[in-house]
Amino acid sequence: MDAYKKAGVDINAGYKLVDEIKKLSHNDALGAFGGMFPLALGQYKKPVLVSGTDGVGTKLLVAIQAGLHETIGIDLVAMCVNDVLAQGAKPLFFLDYLGIGHLDQTQAKEILTGVVNGVSQAGAKLVGGETAEMPDMYQHGHYDLAGFTVGIADQDKLLKTTDLQAGDVLLGLASNGLHSNGFSLVRDILFKQHHYSLDDRLPGCKLDLKHELLRPTRIYVKSVLPLIDQGLIQSIAHITGGGLIENVGRILPADLNAEFDSTSWKMPAIMKKLQTIGQLSFEDMTNTFNLGLGMVLAVRPADKSQVMAELKKAGETVYQVGKLVTGSKKVVIREDAL
Amino acid sequence: MDAYKKAGVDINAGYKLVDEIKKLSHNDALGAFGGMFPLALGQYKKPVLVSGTDGVGTKLLVAIQAGLHETIGIDLVAMCVNDVLAQGAKPLFFLDYLGIGHLDQTQAKEILTGVVNGVSQAGAKLVGGETAEMPDMYQHGHYDLAGFTVGIADQDKLLKTTDLQAGDVLLGLASNGLHSNGFSLVRDILFKQHHYSLDDRLPGCKLDLKHELLRPTRIYVKSVLPLIDQGLIQSIAHITGGGLIENVGRILPADLNAEFDSTSWKMPAIMKKLQTIGQLSFEDMTNTFNLGLGMVLAVRPADKSQVMAELKKAGETVYQVGKLVTGSKKVVIREDAL
Repeated sequence: MDAYKKAGVDINAGYKLVDEIKKLSHNDALGAFGGMFPLALGQYKKPVLVSGTDGVGTKLLVAIQAGLHETIGIDLVAMCVNDVLAQGAKPLFFLDYLGIGHLDQTQAKEILTGVVNGVSQAGAKLVGGETAEMPDMYQHGHYDLAGFTVGIADQDKLLKTTDLQAGDVLLGLASNGLHSNGFSLVRDILFKQHHYSLDDRLPGCKLDLKHELLRPTRIYVKSVLPLIDQGLIQSIAHITGGGLIENVGRILPADLNAEFDSTSWKMPAIMKKLQTIGQLSFEDMTNTFNLGLGMVLAVRPADKSQVMAELKKAGETVYQVGKLVTGSKKVVIREDAL
Repeated sequence: MDAYKKAGVDINAGYKLVDEIKKLSHNDALGAFGGMFPLALGQYKKPVLVSGTDGVGTKLLVAIQAGLHETIGIDLVAMCVNDVLAQGAKPLFFLDYLGIGHLDQTQAKEILTGVVNGVSQAGAKLVGGETAEMPDMYQHGHYDLAGFTVGIADQDKLLKTTDLQAGDVLLGLASNGLHSNGFSLVRDILFKQHHYSLDDRLPGCKLDLKHELLRPTRIYVKSVLPLIDQGLIQSIAHITGGGLIENVGRILPADLNAEFDSTSWKMPAIMKKLQTIGQLSFEDMTNTFNLGLGMVLAVRPADKSQVMAELKKAGETVYQVGKLVTGSKKVVIREDAL
């Protein structure tokens, strides 16, 4: 394989990495042509597989610049499994794709440590993956990550927008900062328009920029899934690219509006600073960032207290952030207090 | 969303693309948080989900250089579904991840046309995907593609290496050229060591280099799956990265060798030329390229004629290329006639 190695692709390094991942994930079956997942279907009458794929966007470039790769895999898993959860499904398994210019074992192991950690947080199983060494595609040290998850739900238990009613309460689950969206804007503001260093700490922020920006996306599966199983959740919006406006808009039926009371929760300091430094309009903010809410749940007023109590018990910070009212599929956030 | 767009990410272009893909794939449900696939389980006693993820490597850079994006999506689907088929499973659905520097609607539509075409060839369904615009990660005009597929098989019908016996016949299914592996080496030889143009035609090759190199990977699902269902196939090796040696080696049990008769099929002209021009050793060749065989099937001698006849009827070119003999998990290809 000398010729191929000289051309920039080290097949043996790839094999060695597979062995590392087997150890990390305690799954010896990794490395087969396809990942296996036996289906236990006893509890499902009409099982539906719910799948999702996502990446982490240019948050990667922050991880690369900072040389901190151990949590970006958590972001990757979070982006995928939270989407599947938002449909009312339980994530079963996960696969990752790592495209990389040059396969550095240490770096790849760090990245995949995050993936394994995320999969564990989601209560899922890592069944496969692909590491593609692509010289000339990625600059040295650069890589892209894509993730893929499959979950399952009973047809009747899938969350539907048609189940929503005027009067339903909107609960917001606190995000862990920026999560994995808006990073091209964040980087533009901090590192192009201005010349902050990753070691700088912005006023009001607890961590320096590299750690503030790289806070891993919160995985809501273990706290929210039991509530879905009990039928206590009507609909879920996972707040990702497009921000609070776009993502809450996606769960609304044609005749309802979502009205947020923006005094009911606090926007994280990092977002406030970005708004100021980047001179962002309120519309820029609401269409790009999660504003501090990683997931928004719609529940019946009668279920609100129980749901809030169980979420807190599961370790979430939860706010009552608004309600559904008769309308025309609009998301209304007044600028008030954020 | 002005600020985000100025930072290089056009959210609206992404939404428009989703509409295009809905039309191309005739699947209006695309664009939800998760892709849905209802499971019809009547025929399975112990269903196992078999999943695979892959990319197309630096074949992408050839497509990009040539400005020909309509078949690279077929390669993407092929890499994934052939892997799942190799386990004995029927591909059910597919998702794609497109990481791109700047979202060009025309280019993205061409890429996804190939994906939709490949999914159709595999008899599967496109249930979701992600297009991530990542300025600063990819050079202008560059993109990476990852695919994910999930298939299903009955536990007892999964192909197992333990079912193989000495005397089993190896059948080779003709590849459609290089398929999607070895392209870093191919590009090194043709465009770095030498200075061929994509418009050149190599002696012995029917097509100019851009079309020769971009021949789409063959998708074997529809021709091979009926034979698996009939129990006529013992094991399958999908010939990808690592070439004939590595991939056939993966299906062998510890006590068998695979012996190839290299006079029994012809290596494609493009590979012969690459060997000459690149001064590649025979080992380089067997460890990198498919040598003209995109898939190798192990069948019982008694089933050979029926399997070959059915494969031909389904449109495959099939060769009897070797057999399994008592040994130690070695793949033996003599240099003879290739």
